[in-house]
Amino acid sequence: MADAAVRPETPASDSRTPAGGAPTAAHTAAEAAEARIDIDAVTNLLLGTWADTRREARELIKDTAFWQVNDLTVAEHRERTLTQLHLLADNGGGRRAFPAEYGGGDDNGANLAGFEELVLADPSLQIKSGVQWGLFASAIYQLGTKKHWDKWLRPVMSMELPGAFAMTETGHGSDVAAIGTTATYDPDTEEFVIHTPFRAAWKDYLGNAALHGKAATVFAQLITGGVNYGVHCFFVPIRDDEGAFLPGIGGEDDGPKGGLNGIDNGRLHFDHVRVPRENLLNRYGDVAPDGSYSSPIDSPGRRFFTMLGALVQGRVSLDGAVTTASALALYIAITYGNQRRQFDSGAGTDEVMLLDYGKHQRRLLPLVAQNYAQFFAHDELLRKFDGVFSGRADTPEEREDLETLAAALKPLSTWNALNTIQESREACGGQGFLAENRMTGLRHDLDVYVTFEGDNNVLLQLVGKRLLSDYAKQFKGKDAAALARFAAAQTAGKVFHGAGLRRLGQAVADFGSTARSVELGLRAEQQHEILSGRVEQMVADLAAALRPASKLDTAEAAALFNRHQAELIEAARAHGELLQWEAFSDGVKAVTDPGTRQVLTWLRDLFGLHLIEKNLAWYLINGRLSTQRAAAVSRYIDRLCARLRPHAQDLVDAYGFAPEHVRAPIASGAERVRQEEAREYYRARAAAGDEPISEKALQKGRTLQTK
Amino acid sequence: MADAAVRPETPASDSRTPAGGAPTAAHTAAEAAEARIDIDAVTNLLLGTWADTRREARELIKDTAFWQVNDLTVAEHRERTLTQLHLLADNGGGRRAFPAEYGGGDDNGANLAGFEELVLADPSLQIKSGVQWGLFASAIYQLGTKKHWDKWLRPVMSMELPGAFAMTETGHGSDVAAIGTTATYDPDTEEFVIHTPFRAAWKDYLGNAALHGKAATVFAQLITGGVNYGVHCFFVPIRDDEGAFLPGIGGEDDGPKGGLNGIDNGRLHFDHVRVPRENLLNRYGDVAPDGSYSSPIDSPGRRFFTMLGALVQGRVSLDGAVTTASALALYIAITYGNQRRQFDSGAGTDEVMLLDYGKHQRRLLPLVAQNYAQFFAHDELLRKFDGVFSGRADTPEEREDLETLAAALKPLSTWNALNTIQESREACGGQGFLAENRMTGLRHDLDVYVTFEGDNNVLLQLVGKRLLSDYAKQFKGKDAAALARFAAAQTAGKVFHGAGLRRLGQAVADFGSTARSVELGLRAEQQHEILSGRVEQMVADLAAALRPASKLDTAEAAALFNRHQAELIEAARAHGELLQWEAFSDGVKAVTDPGTRQVLTWLRDLFGLHLIEKNLAWYLINGRLSTQRAAAVSRYIDRLCARLRPHAQDLVDAYGFAPEHVRAPIASGAERVRQEEAREYYRARAAAGDEPISEKALQKGRTLQTK
Repeated sequence: MADAAVRPETPASDSRTPAGGAPTAAHTAAEAAEARIDIDAVTNLLLGTWADTRREARELIKDTAFWQVNDLTVAEHRERTLTQLHLLADNGGGRRAFPAEYGGGDDNGANLAGFEELVLADPSLQIKSGVQWGLFASAIYQLGTKKHWDKWLRPVMSMELPGAFAMTETGHGSDVAAIGTTATYDPDTEEFVIHTPFRAAWKDYLGNAALHGKAATVFAQLITGGVNYGVHCFFVPIRDDEGAFLPGIGGEDDGPKGGLNGIDNGRLHFDHVRVPRENLLNRYGDVAPDGSYSSPIDSPGRRFFTMLGALVQGRVSLDGAVTTASALALYIAITYGNQRRQFDSGAGTDEVMLLDYGKHQRRLLPLVAQNYAQFFAHDELLRKFDGVFSGRADTPEEREDLETLAAALKPLSTWNALNTIQESREACGGQGFLAENRMTGLRHDLDVYVTFEGDNNVLLQLVGKRLLSDYAKQFKGKDAAALARFAAAQTAGKVFHGAGLRRLGQAVADFGSTARSVELGLRAEQQHEILSGRVEQMVADLAAALRPASKLDTAEAAALFNRHQAELIEAARAHGELLQWEAFSDGVKAVTDPGTRQVLTWLRDLFGLHLIEKNLAWYLINGRLSTQRAAAVSRYIDRLCARLRPHAQDLVDAYGFAPEHVRAPIASGAERVRQEEAREYYRARAAAGDEPISEKALQKGRTLQTK
Repeated sequence: MADAAVRPETPASDSRTPAGGAPTAAHTAAEAAEARIDIDAVTNLLLGTWADTRREARELIKDTAFWQVNDLTVAEHRERTLTQLHLLADNGGGRRAFPAEYGGGDDNGANLAGFEELVLADPSLQIKSGVQWGLFASAIYQLGTKKHWDKWLRPVMSMELPGAFAMTETGHGSDVAAIGTTATYDPDTEEFVIHTPFRAAWKDYLGNAALHGKAATVFAQLITGGVNYGVHCFFVPIRDDEGAFLPGIGGEDDGPKGGLNGIDNGRLHFDHVRVPRENLLNRYGDVAPDGSYSSPIDSPGRRFFTMLGALVQGRVSLDGAVTTASALALYIAITYGNQRRQFDSGAGTDEVMLLDYGKHQRRLLPLVAQNYAQFFAHDELLRKFDGVFSGRADTPEEREDLETLAAALKPLSTWNALNTIQESREACGGQGFLAENRMTGLRHDLDVYVTFEGDNNVLLQLVGKRLLSDYAKQFKGKDAAALARFAAAQTAGKVFHGAGLRRLGQAVADFGSTARSVELGLRAEQQHEILSGRVEQMVADLAAALRPASKLDTAEAAALFNRHQAELIEAARAHGELLQWEAFSDGVKAVTDPGTRQVLTWLRDLFGLHLIEKNLAWYLINGRLSTQRAAAVSRYIDRLCARLRPHAQDLVDAYGFAPEHVRAPIASGAERVRQEEAREYYRARAAAGDEPISEKALQKGRTLQTK
């Protein structure tokens, strides 16, 4: 299925040409007389637990039919993405997560893994699939019961029934509990009346709503017998077979967006639309024909969060998709930086390869380290998700941990993706701005990932609150004097157990023997101590600062909390970064090949030091690093960058992308061909002796003559 | 010319509704019993020296014909922008900079000021104007002589002769001196032969090259008599009246880009194309009929930089355009944040206005402060530019200062623009991602500003080198022992004079009496000392680190330099930020109205503290701030944000944008109308007593009954 146009003119492995002029280091691991990674083995590591599914998905999207095309109108892009979705459905793309009895694969982890890879073809395809199977179908499956599955799962899987996930309203994005749409039960007809009471309660930003959706899973306040039982989800048909809105349904197109224009986002509103009682997706709450309400979960708050938690897979999959998209941008920028030359070094030799510049290494290599950390952390997240959703490890605690972990990792990886893609694009200069080189398109499409499926700042606040409540649990039953002693001794953090991949404070493996961290005090163990110490202290400090809240009235308590909002978010971010670091470290620990282990340990160190450098002021102010040790951090990063420079191409080759996934002309080898042609031209002219002499040389000659 | 659709549904000044629930501060300056800015006066301040021209340009672009339209194909957008350019030409848009005898306005400062405002209509229009009049026409005017002006200036000003500025090559972007295109003089026919020797020497990314350009100013190595006299510029016709390439000319379309798709960027190449000897733009270098070369500037290096310097206006104008574009994004985000409510405070009152959240203030208000600083710094830059180009203050020193200043400010403001627009878009959530709300489009279009007209990192290196050479001049004639004493005492920096708006070390005004900085040690004078001390020390440290270079061979010296590349860039950035701070301070100093002066002083303090916070680790490591003082920085920023929050709307209203410039529905008041409709709905239901009771209340009731 390969298109010859995207195949490199010379194989990428040929980029291992010897160093030209100064300032240059070894360009490749082969030149460096040191350890080298086993590229294939690292590819397997990065592809993770569901490597086979990922390979299968990558193979499928080698078909040009799945590729993003630049310069389509919104209408054309939407049409193309719809066609791709049908093609994907025909290839079984939407089935993996659903039960075998409906033709599904009963494999939640594999489902997300395969779905994430679609970002390489076109992020619009990834997200429209997500709307159809990850949100619309999942609402039916996770919030509904057998009667709903029997009716709708098959046509939804096959794309016969495209649908919208109607949760967000214009007036309420992140605050789902406050939505205005109502579903009032009418016992006379045994129907729910779905109604939009005012403009702010229009459903908004819904994929499949503007054009393609025939039904929607609509979230509304369930009212029966004069009581509001909170947000529930209803299956509501919205369009007839000709695509016209059904009676009582109205809507609007959201129009062109900053990216993801293959998806027909739109608005929906309901004017007393009646649906049968059975259309309530009733796994977590039901209404009997007489209008009486029942639920397996008594607490309205816990019920609400359980329903939302059942839809966590969106967040999980975004973390993986943006990690892969970032890897693509880094592959392009590093490959180009390893071929492109600009400015001579002043040493009279060749122009300098971009990746030999200190600044170029500094801007890109820490991002490669960060991206590797994300791959490892994401695989852990995906395994936890699979454990919960397969039922193998489905306890309330596991669910809560999963939700917290997803809420911690998704913000970091989506923000990192925007930064990484942008830095990669800038590192490629004008070439990076051409749409054909992919990076601007990825940047546009991924922009919204930082605010959808939970605004990043809102998610991090959830994580922060969980950290605070876990912290508070340690002190249950302890008296005020004991608490004061904790606070005074600044050791409170030591007993703190955070949520996530592992409990904080649990020892990680000792890397002392293999880590070649030459800077005393910045080896693996110390990195862990430094990073985890920060989380612990930030949470302890916050808890202390917020303690007076219990004695304040609600408004004053809210104001106190608000004054510490930015710190709460920062603590959650620190927690997420620690989890990424730990996942990377665990990943490296599992490597047996010495060369691979060595290089990945350097890369893990670069990630750890990069995190520490970002917050260096905090460590200094809080007495966690001496000024000497702090000053060593940046120098150590410089050294790690220089050490990793020869391995840069190996590290991005290990992403395992085929030319059909990359498709960026600047990463195809064309740049090296151009450079070599130019150099050959000058060599030939010099050899033939018909090169013009430079004015400078002429002036020097004159000066000599006059003397 | 106003389109009713963009006019707000309720006037923006109505946003001054009283505070709703907690946590809220005063929402408006009117509520706060404090100083308040005089909005009109601040608008005048921000519009600066050429306020009249800016107002005139803003009036012109109220015409819908100039507005960016979303969802055009590349071809349609290019056609629309071309039409706009003709319309602009018909309105005299391209004439301001040129001599009166050719129908111009002889006003360089006004020219750039007017040009910068076009970014509000469509950045493609701004940049295509820049290509035609700022680059193509300027090359003819600045590098050519009267014979060229007589022939081409009029048709170029009127758009009868659209042209490309053919400097950049695929193989050489930032390194213009190394371009491969040759212009070899043939004395037999008295012609230059323009030739592209290899693929990497194709001219690339040229606006007007893909479609509309009829001629190009082509930069090439001038070779005559077997000597290469370096890069010169030639006027080369490229297309006939039907738009077909002339013989020997070839080209390619650059295709869709990440933004600015109204401009037809493309590639050009030349196969032994002959142009008359007179087509050499010969102000700085000429070839006589017999082939002998002459130049008013002997040194080839100085000549090259003089020619490039004559084209500095591109960089100057980008600094202004992105500052205005950032202001637009901030206007939208602050206005929306002042109307949009989300999540209730827990205090049972209204939902909280976004701008009342601590994090929301923290993410947006420092950017407003930064943007104000840029307005003041840009006006100083523009005045310096006007001084040089009007001839009033045209000395080699002034030219060098101007170039250094432009190279320092353009990178900061263009990077800041991308961050500011992105933060603004994220602060508006899903609404921010809709194209109609402008921010994604601005982000796409401005992306390339950070790498064109001089890659930002390359420009900052130029600034860094200038700082180093100015520093070195202080020591001319001093012996090694004296230097060592300087270094040892760490006072070397004190005698350092940097380039820019003013000489470093020159005292700035004492703000002690008016600045209400309550934090001891962080008042205006200390901010200046802290910021300038950093620049001085960074430069002194770099100079010390690079001193051994003079004793090394070229390759080793280059390697040494390369190891410090990132620090050099950082020093230049610190220098640019200091200049912005100083410009802001000077701007505030000129204000007489006490309320305005008070609020702008807080804002200037916020900017200063924001800069210090960014580099807090550096100040701690280098012993410039104690940990106590460093810890106070963030707390002080929090307090300044809270203090400025009621003034936020005033500060963005002072940008002076009309609805026709904003055009974002979310900043039109529609959000407030929606919120009020929703609140009215709930109020009415509560009053009528037909509101469903909440399940929680029901459960509480039950519990009470059982008791």
